Amino acid sequence: MERIVTFGEIMLRLAPEGYYRFVQANSYGATYGGGEANVAVSLANFGLDAAFVTKLPKHEIGQAAVNSLRQFGVDTSKIVRGGSRVGIYFLEKGASQRASKVIYDRAGSAIAAAELKDFDWNAIFDGVSWFHFTGITPALGDTVAAITMEACKIAKAKGITISCDLNYRKNLWSRDKAGEVMGKLMPLVDICIANEEDASDVFGIHAQGTDVSSGKISREGYEGVAKALTDRFGFKKVAITLRESISANDNNWAAMLYTGDISYFSKKYPIHIVDRVGGGDSFGAGLIYGMLRDYSPQEVVEFAVAASCLKHSIEGDFNQISVEEAKKLAGGDASGRVQR
Amino acid sequence: MERIVTFGEIMLRLAPEGYYRFVQANSYGATYGGGEANVAVSLANFGLDAAFVTKLPKHEIGQAAVNSLRQFGVDTSKIVRGGSRVGIYFLEKGASQRASKVIYDRAGSAIAAAELKDFDWNAIFDGVSWFHFTGITPALGDTVAAITMEACKIAKAKGITISCDLNYRKNLWSRDKAGEVMGKLMPLVDICIANEEDASDVFGIHAQGTDVSSGKISREGYEGVAKALTDRFGFKKVAITLRESISANDNNWAAMLYTGDISYFSKKYPIHIVDRVGGGDSFGAGLIYGMLRDYSPQEVVEFAVAASCLKHSIEGDFNQISVEEAKKLAGGDASGRVQR
Amino acid sequence: MERIVTFGEIMLRLAPEGYYRFVQANSYGATYGGGEANVAVSLANFGLDAAFVTKLPKHEIGQAAVNSLRQFGVDTSKIVRGGSRVGIYFLEKGASQRASKVIYDRAGSAIAAAELKDFDWNAIFDGVSWFHFTGITPALGDTVAAITMEACKIAKAKGITISCDLNYRKNLWSRDKAGEVMGKLMPLVDICIANEEDASDVFGIHAQGTDVSSGKISREGYEGVAKALTDRFGFKKVAITLRESISANDNNWAAMLYTGDISYFSKKYPIHIVDRVGGGDSFGAGLIYGMLRDYSPQEVVEFAVAASCLKHSIEGDFNQISVEEAKKLAGGDASGRVQR
Amino acid sequence: MERIVTFGEIMLRLAPEGYYRFVQANSYGATYGGGEANVAVSLANFGLDAAFVTKLPKHEIGQAAVNSLRQFGVDTSKIVRGGSRVGIYFLEKGASQRASKVIYDRAGSAIAAAELKDFDWNAIFDGVSWFHFTGITPALGDTVAAITMEACKIAKAKGITISCDLNYRKNLWSRDKAGEVMGKLMPLVDICIANEEDASDVFGIHAQGTDVSSGKISREGYEGVAKALTDRFGFKKVAITLRESISANDNNWAAMLYTGDISYFSKKYPIHIVDRVGGGDSFGAGLIYGMLRDYSPQEVVEFAVAASCLKHSIEGDFNQISVEEAKKLAGGDASGRVQR
Amino acid sequence: MERIVTFGEIMLRLAPEGYYRFVQANSYGATYGGGEANVAVSLANFGLDAAFVTKLPKHEIGQAAVNSLRQFGVDTSKIVRGGSRVGIYFLEKGASQRASKVIYDRAGSAIAAAELKDFDWNAIFDGVSWFHFTGITPALGDTVAAITMEACKIAKAKGITISCDLNYRKNLWSRDKAGEVMGKLMPLVDICIANEEDASDVFGIHAQGTDVSSGKISREGYEGVAKALTDRFGFKKVAITLRESISANDNNWAAMLYTGDISYFSKKYPIHIVDRVGGGDSFGAGLIYGMLRDYSPQEVVEFAVAASCLKHSIEGDFNQISVEEAKKLAGGDASGRVQR
Amino acid sequence: MERIVTFGEIMLRLAPEGYYRFVQANSYGATYGGGEANVAVSLANFGLDAAFVTKLPKHEIGQAAVNSLRQFGVDTSKIVRGGSRVGIYFLEKGASQRASKVIYDRAGSAIAAAELKDFDWNAIFDGVSWFHFTGITPALGDTVAAITMEACKIAKAKGITISCDLNYRKNLWSRDKAGEVMGKLMPLVDICIANEEDASDVFGIHAQGTDVSSGKISREGYEGVAKALTDRFGFKKVAITLRESISANDNNWAAMLYTGDISYFSKKYPIHIVDRVGGGDSFGAGLIYGMLRDYSPQEVVEFAVAASCLKHSIEGDFNQISVEEAKKLAGGDASGRVQR
Repeated sequence: MERIVTFGEIMLRLAPEGYYRFVQANSYGATYGGGEANVAVSLANFGLDAAFVTKLPKHEIGQAAVNSLRQFGVDTSKIVRGGSRVGIYFLEKGASQRASKVIYDRAGSAIAAAELKDFDWNAIFDGVSWFHFTGITPALGDTVAAITMEACKIAKAKGITISCDLNYRKNLWSRDKAGEVMGKLMPLVDICIANEEDASDVFGIHAQGTDVSSGKISREGYEGVAKALTDRFGFKKVAITLRESISANDNNWAAMLYTGDISYFSKKYPIHIVDRVGGGDSFGAGLIYGMLRDYSPQEVVEFAVAASCLKHSIEGDFNQISVEEAKKLAGGDASGRVQR
Repeated sequence: MERIVTFGEIMLRLAPEGYYRFVQANSYGATYGGGEANVAVSLANFGLDAAFVTKLPKHEIGQAAVNSLRQFGVDTSKIVRGGSRVGIYFLEKGASQRASKVIYDRAGSAIAAAELKDFDWNAIFDGVSWFHFTGITPALGDTVAAITMEACKIAKAKGITISCDLNYRKNLWSRDKAGEVMGKLMPLVDICIANEEDASDVFGIHAQGTDVSSGKISREGYEGVAKALTDRFGFKKVAITLRESISANDNNWAAMLYTGDISYFSKKYPIHIVDRVGGGDSFGAGLIYGMLRDYSPQEVVEFAVAASCLKHSIEGDFNQISVEEAKKLAGGDASGRVQR
Repeated sequence: MERIVTFGEIMLRLAPEGYYRFVQANSYGATYGGGEANVAVSLANFGLDAAFVTKLPKHEIGQAAVNSLRQFGVDTSKIVRGGSRVGIYFLEKGASQRASKVIYDRAGSAIAAAELKDFDWNAIFDGVSWFHFTGITPALGDTVAAITMEACKIAKAKGITISCDLNYRKNLWSRDKAGEVMGKLMPLVDICIANEEDASDVFGIHAQGTDVSSGKISREGYEGVAKALTDRFGFKKVAITLRESISANDNNWAAMLYTGDISYFSKKYPIHIVDRVGGGDSFGAGLIYGMLRDYSPQEVVEFAVAASCLKHSIEGDFNQISVEEAKKLAGGDASGRVQR
Repeated sequence: MERIVTFGEIMLRLAPEGYYRFVQANSYGATYGGGEANVAVSLANFGLDAAFVTKLPKHEIGQAAVNSLRQFGVDTSKIVRGGSRVGIYFLEKGASQRASKVIYDRAGSAIAAAELKDFDWNAIFDGVSWFHFTGITPALGDTVAAITMEACKIAKAKGITISCDLNYRKNLWSRDKAGEVMGKLMPLVDICIANEEDASDVFGIHAQGTDVSSGKISREGYEGVAKALTDRFGFKKVAITLRESISANDNNWAAMLYTGDISYFSKKYPIHIVDRVGGGDSFGAGLIYGMLRDYSPQEVVEFAVAASCLKHSIEGDFNQISVEEAKKLAGGDASGRVQR
Repeated sequence: MERIVTFGEIMLRLAPEGYYRFVQANSYGATYGGGEANVAVSLANFGLDAAFVTKLPKHEIGQAAVNSLRQFGVDTSKIVRGGSRVGIYFLEKGASQRASKVIYDRAGSAIAAAELKDFDWNAIFDGVSWFHFTGITPALGDTVAAITMEACKIAKAKGITISCDLNYRKNLWSRDKAGEVMGKLMPLVDICIANEEDASDVFGIHAQGTDVSSGKISREGYEGVAKALTDRFGFKKVAITLRESISANDNNWAAMLYTGDISYFSKKYPIHIVDRVGGGDSFGAGLIYGMLRDYSPQEVVEFAVAASCLKHSIEGDFNQISVEEAKKLAGGDASGRVQR
Repeated sequence: MERIVTFGEIMLRLAPEGYYRFVQANSYGATYGGGEANVAVSLANFGLDAAFVTKLPKHEIGQAAVNSLRQFGVDTSKIVRGGSRVGIYFLEKGASQRASKVIYDRAGSAIAAAELKDFDWNAIFDGVSWFHFTGITPALGDTVAAITMEACKIAKAKGITISCDLNYRKNLWSRDKAGEVMGKLMPLVDICIANEEDASDVFGIHAQGTDVSSGKISREGYEGVAKALTDRFGFKKVAITLRESISANDNNWAAMLYTGDISYFSKKYPIHIVDRVGGGDSFGAGLIYGMLRDYSPQEVVEFAVAASCLKHSIEGDFNQISVEEAKKLAGGDASGRVQR
């Protein structure tokens, strides 16, 4: 079985139940999530051997984060224990015209305060065939960026495929800083994943004919983005998710996969949203799974989009979807009829 | 007041709250339901004298099932107490493209293990004008099928109207077995109820021009199904519900009533679903009510469809709708404006 | 900072969670609300100095009502304490074709049993620039109507702007009685607010070309209503909300503001409803805010409609929306994209 | 099977969960209860045919009260439907030195506003062998007191045994008024039930050597009370519960039964309290059951005390205890070992 | 690190929240537990390499059971997947004089229906130093008893220490049958664990001077039991837990360890119970841990009793206690002062 | 009305419901608390004009903290808004021998990162008669210690009474550092409050004959502590709470007040604990209230101990007790009988 390693931060997610606003909350649902952790859980749910690497405090909140991962079969044995706090994000679910809102409280987390020597990448990468991270990880600070760079170099040397989801977070770093740091990491990356805004935010590569805030998405524009990214960094493949946000409840969801010459566009799904956090991560996991299973490019993008479409119907960051369920949807059954 | 008896299984329904998946559930909402029990509750809510007949253990879980029925005015005095377990079904509510999922855990339930001598149908049918069962009941096992046959014969002899909802459950028996057993019961039945798939599953009678998985429904095709059923078994009336499943959240809902010569089609309602389990049962209850009240065929089918349309907005198996509410909707007020 | 006073009843609102019906409820969410209290909270959330005047018992349920207001910054120092009960309303949330349902249990509440001497309006109106009440308050009984009249007269004498939301409640009084009592209050009112049915219910002024139950709304018809109201009572401005109820889940929401010569129509928002109670009150608060901030008429109606559109996404009677959020929506961003 | 009728008010009970105070409550557990309703449920749980008589509104809150009774097998067919509200009581559970607190909001309830002609006692008492009420019922108002008197007279004429639990409520009437009204009803009563304070509150009959607030209870004193009550009103039997309140969590619980010559004292149970409301009512039900089953006086009081001891471990007003469970405890097994 | 294998059934545990009775439950807390699973989780929480062996269905309820184990670090890779249902037990928590109640619904579970060939014990026991099972496992049926026997024989051949907790369950088999089957397994067992009733139930070995139902426990009596068990079966060590049940809330808890010549008695702890299910299993786990760590006999029994004392303060079957916490209590700090 | 100012940190408190451990928590109850905030709320509940001073972020979590205070009538107008995070503490409630556990996550909070210029103490202290802080505040960092010093100096200059609760927190600073910083603040303090360990932790002043971990408390020893504190720092009064911890559920609670010559000892209350966090703060508030009301020393300490005894029965940090309730207990009624 292929073994995948993902590296990043897992946070305690505190969300008022239902559609309550923060100022109305008397309790918070407590789950855990983070870009790369979400990918690891999704891959484990697909039956792969997925390990998540991070640093977490030894105390019970840190332990609960570990438990949340191993519950779903993720290998947590490479997680370094130490540091003083688990990063937190508060999530308020939007509805109709009211947007969902995230308040980050992640400064000083164990991983953000980690040191280079905490991670023995040669050991971590033993027997591994794929390494995945997102743009959030190097954004956590210069040391974490350096750790990421070291990981990429060792992965490269070992012939491990590297994928990166650009995942720009404006509250963590500026566009300039992101462009600079990510620009150095990208040449080591094989598979680049982005959403409809990332390439513009991080590298200033804009999609022609698209206005995200109005929900208008141009297929041709994103083909151009993928080509530009490939030209600049030499990616083997570029995948871009194409979210049309009609309201906080209703989104259209599709993606494209660019293989250096051809752009493969998926079906587009109109989604009634339960929880859209982790949507992009579930796409990344689907993409990795499809490639590891040697699906054709069209099959890869259809599988990844179907898996991530279904994620939007799942509470929490983690995608709780099986390969069979994603395949069934990709195969055309979107009727939602009761399965008895 | 007319007295109606329904016969079948009532199960403990265990459902994670909201849209949580089974693997995320830390608690289960515990309600009770089952095809014929649902019909009895709905009729009691309409103000009729409805009795539900089954077998339930003497322990507290059995008692809770009894209480769930008498809470809504169902006569539970004919329920036989004994046996060792209450059948269970686990229900995971779907959303958007993700289908709802049912896991049955009903083998060995008290009613499935019941004996012929447990039920004194002559006493049970004293003062009764209508008997209703569904195809689920004989599917529980050969003995229960025999009990059902005995009930039908005695009902017939007493001049009681018999209705049956075909309700095919593939996890309980094969299409062949269903066809064989149901084929013997049908000649005793006056009113046949079916959904858009049952006639095909049980008797191999297909609707022309219809592809359920794609959501395409042909009115003419179902007219043909009703006619074929009537021709084969001599039903007085055949009613068929016509569900178009757009997603797990959105369905269109309508029905037809065939009276041996004319097909009466109801309005079609676009439904935003709260809980669709028991939708068909609430239709059956509406049908029985309308017929007992001597509504015209068009009124019958409109009332039954309106009542069952509203069921989709109710949590749990039981339809908690009054006659007035169903009539108001059938009369055209679907605006959902606040009633103060 | 401008100081606004609103006067009326605040009730304990008891609502089953989610979409449960009253007969299924084993617990009730307990919040507080009422037309004028809702306006006060909304204005306080906008950063204004808003005081709510009522009478509430000294016991803990009365105290909890007070706390619910001061939690959001409303000045409760003018609330008279005494009387024996807090009015209650039970709220069942509708879904799809099933309407929401309100059962009032407010007879004998402290405010309904209040006396003229309980309120020293000269003191209450010290430093106040705006007074707001709704048609519910005088409907609570003759004494409360007299108190309201006294308040209006003193406000008028002090040059305070007076706004009134007609808010007809058929369970509190007849159309005739409402017309009579409100007819005497209206000449003191500067700004009249109404929904699409109030003018007809209270004053028999019908909108041409409109059938509320069918969801059909005529712009021209409401222009005529506003003009007729202005002609009869001499209002400075008339604002009318225009709700098209497609189902209990989906409404279209817009409004007009008539300034004596010109009608300003807002954008129309299709809303997926979380909780529509207090929708009109949040409009009124937006209107008052916009006028106090000297927005142009078009800006006023757009701000008020955006604020009240967002209210429909908020649980509870109180609108938990900031000025910035309302402005952002009024400015065109309705995409509901996650705010990180 | 013996048929028992109880008559009184059933209220909606709204209680914050756990040990939350009213001012902290964001939701209320919603159950139903009232002295005579509690007795009816307890008797139905013992397997008897118990009917509860009251008046309740036709709306859904009234219906929910009905359902709460028939769920446990109480005959609700004699309940009159009409009136405008269901009485409410708010209950805050105490802990340690902090006392439980009740806020009544029952004025104007359907039963308090009922009329003499609402109840056809000759029909209600058909086939009945026992009639039970408490001192709360006549305290609801002069008309309800008159209805109670009529019920007692007709019961007496039909040879029905009448029991009354004095149950003094100082917020409903004064001691003088209670003494006057109850003094007229008592001569019709066969079995008088009281707690350690009632006889003093209602009839000024004090127990020597007892100071309830200090938790000191004198057996001899209560023997004197029972004798004095019997001397004054000619009761066949007098039962008195003897609660020693150590804290809101811990009470000692015992009772005596006086048969006109001998006082039978029960064992005394140290109780760790889950919910003490309805403790006295569960004692009354046990007493009635024991007498109907012709237990010996000692057996009667032991059964009644054991049943009511167990009530203190049950959430809600209703005693959810079987005859077997009460007998097991009365028989000496108080170890609380797990029953597998 | 030592590797321990335990073998048995893990069930879905459905428990009403707080002190609600089954007939009051509208939802069930859903956790998982079972004698041997509980031991495995406790050992994993102590930091050991613990694997649990059973058979579970492939469906989501089976998966949830697996997840509940791996969440706490138990190795679930040896669990066989197949069969149709997960065993269930319903648990109602007792209070004061009201006993906790368990209703088993475990017939036909995957493990009860397992076959000999499902388990490859040679592979399972690879690298294992300790094997643990309880008397519940062979009670599941003759085949499971045969599987257990096979496991014991192979373990014995491999020099693995075998421990067995007698754990008699009267609803699974008779005392005679238990004595017969267990009598054949015992000669293979090294360490025998029992509670204060097991030896009597299974082997007819009674403790002198003890009456469990009265809470009276004789130290000397249990020394005799341990000696008799050792004489009959040749155990290396016998450990007996000594529970004195004062009420459902309050128990005294202690234990003895007999090493063939000397009896080591632990301190006795007065416990205020949160959840006593799994108390014995947590003792077994503590015992195994102490022996694997080569604690002295007195240290072993003190550690095991402290760990299991703390279990009574933990919700659910699983003991969520660290080695440090158990040692701290065993070391004398029982004050429960806040740890900041 | 006297105006009191308290200064310190208010944190988001995240606590699993009931007795769940952190690793079992799927949701956290979200309330707010902190030593000085707790005192302010308690004083506001006593009817005084209490203001709380701190710094809180502008975002919604900061706003929720503000709302939690003004809900109970605390003046929040002096709170500075800014900074990036709200301090958090995780609280796991202990039971029986298992201790409660607190995990602090407060580094980098807005108040800990506040600057001297954030607070204009001359303005804050306008019209103020009492200033209160605890040893936690200067422990937040050198700058906050300097702010505290400045506040004390200005308070002193204005003739404001200053009280300080030593409240040593070992996770915030060392005993040496605490002694140094607090040693400089103490000469400005009039009223010193301490628990049974603080004087020893901060100033090395030990109580003779006392072993806190064993629950043994010597009255004479604490008289000596009070005298030594007074001798060293010149306090006007010293109050010491005397907690005997029997288990996490059961504590004895008492206090002494030393007035420079006489020690006044309160009654001792055996408490069954609901939530003991904030127990000391509620004592401090009671003390301040009693002194402001010019109670005699014995009355002061009895009132303060009664108020804080009752706090142990209240969920959350804030003491939700009225003056009347505290007086009733101080007056001798500890029976916990239901208040109807």
